[in-house]
Amino acid sequence: MSAPAPIRDPAEIYRRSFAIIREEAELARFAPDEQAIAIRMIHACGMVDLANDIVVSDGFAGAARAALAQGAPVLCDAEMVRHGVIARLMPAGNEVLCLLNDPRVREIAAREATTRSAAQVDLWAERMAGAVIAIGNAPTALYRLLDLIDAGAPRPAAIIGAPVGFVGAAESKDELIADPRGVPFLAVRGRRGGSALASACVNALAGGLEGHG
Amino acid sequence: MSAPAPIRDPAEIYRRSFAIIREEAELARFAPDEQAIAIRMIHACGMVDLANDIVVSDGFAGAARAALAQGAPVLCDAEMVRHGVIARLMPAGNEVLCLLNDPRVREIAAREATTRSAAQVDLWAERMAGAVIAIGNAPTALYRLLDLIDAGAPRPAAIIGAPVGFVGAAESKDELIADPRGVPFLAVRGRRGGSALASACVNALAGGLEGHG
Repeated sequence: MSAPAPIRDPAEIYRRSFAIIREEAELARFAPDEQAIAIRMIHACGMVDLANDIVVSDGFAGAARAALAQGAPVLCDAEMVRHGVIARLMPAGNEVLCLLNDPRVREIAAREATTRSAAQVDLWAERMAGAVIAIGNAPTALYRLLDLIDAGAPRPAAIIGAPVGFVGAAESKDELIADPRGVPFLAVRGRRGGSALASACVNALAGGLEGHG
Repeated sequence: MSAPAPIRDPAEIYRRSFAIIREEAELARFAPDEQAIAIRMIHACGMVDLANDIVVSDGFAGAARAALAQGAPVLCDAEMVRHGVIARLMPAGNEVLCLLNDPRVREIAAREATTRSAAQVDLWAERMAGAVIAIGNAPTALYRLLDLIDAGAPRPAAIIGAPVGFVGAAESKDELIADPRGVPFLAVRGRRGGSALASACVNALAGGLEGHG
């Protein structure tokens, strides 16, 4: 090949990636700590125009960072989200949990005629006070979370709302944006979302723009 | 709310999602078994225009399906890809592996001055003959795979090339498309890609459009 040799050094790949994103993405409306989040999320999906769909409430980054520093758990709606979170970045050895495969979930899902993703949210309740919630898959999980808060469940410290898809994803995030129940949040408006975006947001909250090879 | 109640039934969510994708995405150029793959990949990212960036070589779906039916392992470049693969869809209880956290990887990465993602590919070699390769994260892993094949490593049955990002992702996939080394492949052209796309492709190969709640 006459093409230049591919760059292989992980630190250099991160540096160039973040430089390209800063050059191409419209980040001016974000506060500096929100920019680090937006950059990492864009990095995870390869699309600079994602910046236009990221909605962040005032105080989200601060509230989520403080919660993590105090050891709050991260509750994920999918195993992919959990495995996208970089454990060593967590400031207090925080637990990163997904309860989708908990043996009780299937029964709850059948009883409530809902998805397993939503059913597991019922099992979050005892850990939800002050937790960071990362939803990167199921709109039904986000709806269920909002329903539980409406019903008096303990409030999480922050909600990352990034479910993806064609049925309910945009609507569930619109509902979060319209009425976040007093909880600081970040949402990705529209159909786009996904586990990589949710975990990238958690990683940015925990570790800023540090690379991870 | 005056909005209609959200749909919660998982089978109905899948049905409606796939119907929306069939209506909106340009799928006519794909063979029927390729359409199922494209639909599942679009479903995983929420973007119907992904169809335009999916490049499939003749015989990819057949070769990958036959390999899975014969018990071939699925080698993934990221834990997120591995955890996105739905084990119960695998036709022969196939192993789904990611060796990123193998204790030997850090040493190889340091010695070769490359990413851990690329370093793990060296450890795939002994399982690579006839395997299905799913790359959903690192361009360096895809480049390394092609280098190893050039150096005489055993040929996999099929390559899913969906690394994501701003440095090397588009280029590594262009290289795969330009010279797949005789291996059937699917690639997502450009910066887009990701673990959800790679695992959705594996799931479509294994289970078609079956829902998974």
